[in-house]
Amino acid sequence: MPLLTIGSAAYDTLETPFGFRERSLGGSGVYASFAASFFTESRLIGVVGGDWKPEYSGLLRSRGVDLEGLETRENEKTTYWSGRYFDDMNQRETLLFEGNVMSETYIPIVPDSYKNTPYVFLGNGSPVTDVALLDSIAKPKLVVADTMDFYINGMKKELLDLLTKIDGLIVNDGEATLLTGERNFLFAAKKILELGPKFVVIKRGEYGASYISENEIYLVPAYPTMNVVDPTGAGDAFAGAFMGSLAESGDLSAESVKTALLYATVVASLNVEGFSLERFQFVTRAEIDKRAAEFRKILV
Amino acid sequence: MPLLTIGSAAYDTLETPFGFRERSLGGSGVYASFAASFFTESRLIGVVGGDWKPEYSGLLRSRGVDLEGLETRENEKTTYWSGRYFDDMNQRETLLFEGNVMSETYIPIVPDSYKNTPYVFLGNGSPVTDVALLDSIAKPKLVVADTMDFYINGMKKELLDLLTKIDGLIVNDGEATLLTGERNFLFAAKKILELGPKFVVIKRGEYGASYISENEIYLVPAYPTMNVVDPTGAGDAFAGAFMGSLAESGDLSAESVKTALLYATVVASLNVEGFSLERFQFVTRAEIDKRAAEFRKILV
Repeated sequence: MPLLTIGSAAYDTLETPFGFRERSLGGSGVYASFAASFFTESRLIGVVGGDWKPEYSGLLRSRGVDLEGLETRENEKTTYWSGRYFDDMNQRETLLFEGNVMSETYIPIVPDSYKNTPYVFLGNGSPVTDVALLDSIAKPKLVVADTMDFYINGMKKELLDLLTKIDGLIVNDGEATLLTGERNFLFAAKKILELGPKFVVIKRGEYGASYISENEIYLVPAYPTMNVVDPTGAGDAFAGAFMGSLAESGDLSAESVKTALLYATVVASLNVEGFSLERFQFVTRAEIDKRAAEFRKILV
Repeated sequence: MPLLTIGSAAYDTLETPFGFRERSLGGSGVYASFAASFFTESRLIGVVGGDWKPEYSGLLRSRGVDLEGLETRENEKTTYWSGRYFDDMNQRETLLFEGNVMSETYIPIVPDSYKNTPYVFLGNGSPVTDVALLDSIAKPKLVVADTMDFYINGMKKELLDLLTKIDGLIVNDGEATLLTGERNFLFAAKKILELGPKFVVIKRGEYGASYISENEIYLVPAYPTMNVVDPTGAGDAFAGAFMGSLAESGDLSAESVKTALLYATVVASLNVEGFSLERFQFVTRAEIDKRAAEFRKILV
């Protein structure tokens, strides 16, 4: 079933121990919608400025990502982020962030063709934007949101409102702690469930991820890799593949959730093997399935 | 097949957010040999002072741990450790450590009945002690050692010598980094394999553990628990159960290693549910198998 993703399409300037890239393709909506496209019909909502490179849209379309919902505002500038990774690449610092065309109060324009999309992923954007999107479409079968420290700290009230309107939340362990005050991820997850979502996925970077609902918990370790070139977008690719796989399965059975966690982990591991989407753009479903099968074999 | 464990039998004074215990039963040899006893015939080598409580030996014997190798030196004092855990219990500080009867140059007395034991686990002790033990027994089928920062920092030469004489090393991620200078656990593991061992198990606390050999890798997440009362001995219980399960299987096949990782994780999770061995002493193999089966179900 089709998946609608809302998130940023951005220019990223990246520095890692392996090199440097200037104004490369990035953004949570880009990574997530691209990752989802391996599993299901993938639709993107976002906004870019007049400086947006058409070839970046071409790259997304080459994987079938539907960009009818990607608005262009000719007189504004595309969202820009630059960052630097350290050491083992678990640490990064943001050098510059310019929201530009995608502000905290950005209200998306939703094409009619998107309005009945059954699966919705609210990528890393403002809760105000997310609620506006939900208000302008038919009630979906499943709505899952991502969030981040910026909104937890600065738009808590709006975020808490959003949490009452979604089925699932995907966060990393630091965000879960920031939102709930709990350091143990299980305690944090239980508190998040009390805020509205029926399930929460907690990502723990190189340590894997967990899905927790009232009566269920599923665990996946991280894919063991010695080949991390650029971690940018790993969390977004994880979330996009998770949602794409759920949309492909069409339900939240134990098997579907476990499969989605497995695919999310594998897709994220492929994404980090190159800067931006340099490696990711050449990934195939066959390659994902092959790595997923290998990954299954090394799990107890 | 029988397993011989060498390690400390000690008094632990413990403080966690859940309470306080004074001079309770502890020590790497105690936790490891007790954990192994669920899976195989378990023999302990160690040394205690004249102040050792006979009921602590009784507790170990109640699970069938063979204590013929537990020497008593009437005029000396038992090893003593006191420590305090913080917050989420991932951090601890040592308040006092007195090696006492078990010094860095302790040479074990090995009973004849132990000398042909096929599986050997060298618990958290001095590499000098470990090498002396290996020199006084017939060549075992499998020798695995644990180590810690104290020996990595202070007895590096002796430790490197030990590494050439063992089949496997069990360490936590911090120790692996300290030993190799590598922060990524896969890079660290590869360097450790170059030092001698054919495999390395890297424990990552609440994030699970990995087994790595030249051509294999197996992963297990940590058992998700909201019920950690006292983490003391978790690593030793993990290692003891891992070795006990390997000894029960009798080989290093993929299935045997995965089973050992699973059991190790489950046994460690049961151990931390009470202070010292207060909870652990009442655990049964049936309870371990039940939790192992439940754990399998929540893994992808």
